[in-house]
Parts: sequence; structure tokens; C-alpha cells
Amino acid sequence: MQPIVCVVGASNSGKTTYLEKLIPEMVRRGYRVGTVKHDVHGFEMDREGKDSWRHRQAGASVIAVSSPSRIGMIREMSGEMELEELAGRYFWDTDIILTEGYKKLHYPKVEVFRAAVESKPICGKEDNLLATVSDDPVPTDMPVFKFAEVARLADLIEDRFLKPRKRPRVLVLLDGRQLPMKDFVKDFLAEGIRGMLSTLRGWKGQKSIDVQIRLGDE
Amino acid sequence: MQPIVCVVGASNSGKTTYLEKLIPEMVRRGYRVGTVKHDVHGFEMDREGKDSWRHRQAGASVIAVSSPSRIGMIREMSGEMELEELAGRYFWDTDIILTEGYKKLHYPKVEVFRAAVESKPICGKEDNLLATVSDDPVPTDMPVFKFAEVARLADLIEDRFLKPRKRPRVLVLLDGRQLPMKDFVKDFLAEGIRGMLSTLRGWKGQKSIDVQIRLGDE
Repeated sequence: MQPIVCVVGASNSGKTTYLEKLIPEMVRRGYRVGTVKHDVHGFEMDREGKDSWRHRQAGASVIAVSSPSRIGMIREMSGEMELEELAGRYFWDTDIILTEGYKKLHYPKVEVFRAAVESKPICGKEDNLLATVSDDPVPTDMPVFKFAEVARLADLIEDRFLKPRKRPRVLVLLDGRQLPMKDFVKDFLAEGIRGMLSTLRGWKGQKSIDVQIRLGDE
Repeated sequence: MQPIVCVVGASNSGKTTYLEKLIPEMVRRGYRVGTVKHDVHGFEMDREGKDSWRHRQAGASVIAVSSPSRIGMIREMSGEMELEELAGRYFWDTDIILTEGYKKLHYPKVEVFRAAVESKPICGKEDNLLATVSDDPVPTDMPVFKFAEVARLADLIEDRFLKPRKRPRVLVLLDGRQLPMKDFVKDFLAEGIRGMLSTLRGWKGQKSIDVQIRLGDE
């Protein structure tokens, strides 16, 4: 998996505004950035009356719009997809995922804090807090960066999570749920599958391998 | 791969309106339906000013919004994703994909035809035409169904494409491109990987296996 860093904070603390600084800073450093907005209330993404909206209203479970410059997709869910599965399924070629929200998950977090909005930060060290972003005094022994010091936070994220990887990243989903595996099992799978594929004509040492198997009706 | 059927026709012939009949008919028969709208011009799916729109404007390559009832995703592309890859990546649990557009691809097609809009149909038998939908006379020896006869088209699609499968479906993407494989290679891979995974604790005979490998920097 690529690293996931969650930007959290009270409502109206400035999370989106801060992401509008952090995303371009990471892009400028050469990383492909994906973002996930956690929306607990549901949302409407497509526009009423558009063809894709009409497909969805007619009962399609998954709808996509594909153009040369962009793909849009909406999937109806009967329960929230776990962030790890979402990251694996949709963000295969991004180097880092920045989320807005997901304060209850265990991923490393950056809290955006404004004293005008709340009396004290919502995260502590036990919440896997990486740093707080604030222009106000913050009672913490963790790093605090001002809103303008986005490069310093980017340095920290880069140092901590984006050093070159030496091992393959391996993710296995069985009926959509992640299979927990120890590192030696991941290595065994990665090398086993790479070995099988390397005997085929289309193999040219590609770095990214996706295998989907849908077992038949028996 | 699940079957793909393309609903094609001249602009304003009634493709979306017909899909609004066909989708619920397939859903009523117990199939999970996915749809793809082919948009050659590009599109805006998210709404200006919303958080997800702001993430994208800030330079994120892939953005998603996740809620308990729905996932929305937008991916910036530098060239169109092939329909087969799109189907594999986003529609893993649908039984059939109905597209609006893609008249140039080789998939089975249903043409929606209205004499008020165009002088003659755009597809012939050589275009892998399955049937024409029209309330006007159509000069063809292929099946023609009236707009209201959606159940008859659904019967045809069901008979032709939705009989139970006996073999596993296998899709391998290397750096995002599909690896062509003969059936015996697919069977070998499916059984080999199923065999490796079946020795692990989390294996319970799941029907759907997704493996993602990102080889490390060497």
C-alpha cells in the first residue's frame, strides 16, 4: 500500500483549505497524489438530469463516465468501503493518499486547529498524530507547523513515508476483503506470480501487476 | 470479464431513454448492472466549490468521496482508458455492463434508431449488431424490437451472455495494460494462485481474488 495521511480537525477548521496547499506542494515534489474525502452524510456527485445520473436512477449499481481526459465513477454501497480497500482499488498508481477526515482510523494524522473554532485539538499522540497545523498556540509536545509552513510538513511526510521502497507491495482481496499476510508470504506470492508471468510472451519486467480471478460456478 | 453490451445510435436517437428501460429490466431479473457513458468531449462530474472539486483543482490525480451509501471517484487521464481495463478495474461485482456509446468497439451492440433523427441505421451485422430498437421500419434481417419490447431484448441478452460460467474469469494487467493469455494459461494462473492462497489461514473458498503487486525499487 502507498502511505495514507489523514488531515483531520473540527468542522470549519480549514482542512480543505490546507489540503489546497499541501496537495500542490507534494505534486511539485514529483509525487502522484490521491485524495479521499470522508463524507459521513452521503453526497450527490453527478448532476441531476445528466445521462450518468439517469443511469443511476434507473438502478445501475456502478456507473462510469469515460473520456480521454478523465474518468468519473459512482458506486452504490450498502455500507462503507474500508479505506484500505478503497486505496487498493482506486489509487493503484498514486504515491500517497491524503484524506480529509477519517479521524477515527489508525492512520498517521495531521490535525488542522484553529482556536477560533474549538477550545482544544481533537487528537493526541495516542491517535497517531504526526503534527498539528495551527497559527495559534497549541499545548502539545508534537511538531506544530503554521498554515504557511506547508513545506515543513511536506518534508516530514516525505522523510517518514516516501523513502524508496525495497520490498514489493502486495495486496490480496478475497471477496473484496483484505487478506492479512506476513511479509514472507507476500514475498512468496509476489515472486511466485512474477515467476509464472515471466514465462509469458507479454512479460517485459513490468513493475505493476494486477490479477483478477473470478472463480466460475461449480 | 463480465459481458459488455453497447447501446449505440445517432445523437438524440434515445439511447439514454432506452437505457432507462433496459437497466431496471435487467435489475428486476436479478443482475447487478454497471453502465459506462462514453463521453468524447470530457465532462465535469463534481461540482465547483465542493471539497472534492477543490482537491482536484489543487492537483490531485485521483480523488474519491466515500460515504456509507456511495463512493464517487474522479481520475485525471492523459489518454482514454480502454473499456476492458475500465470494466476490470471498476466493475468487479457487476454481472453485465451496458454502455452508452462506444460504437467503434467490437463489443455486441444494440442500435437505437429513430427515422425522425437519421435516414438509416449506423450499424450493420459486420459491427457485431445484436438487435435494433426502433418503432420505425428498419431495413435489416437482424432482430428489431420496439421501444416498449424491452423484455424481448433482455431475453436475448440473457440467453446469449448470461448463462452460468464454468471457467474462472482471469484478467492480468501489467503496468495497467491487459496481458493477452490463452485459456490454458488463465486456468494455470487461476489454479496456481488459488493453490498458493488456499494454504493461508484467511482462505475460505472465496470466489473473487484480487492480487495487486507493486514491485519495489531495485
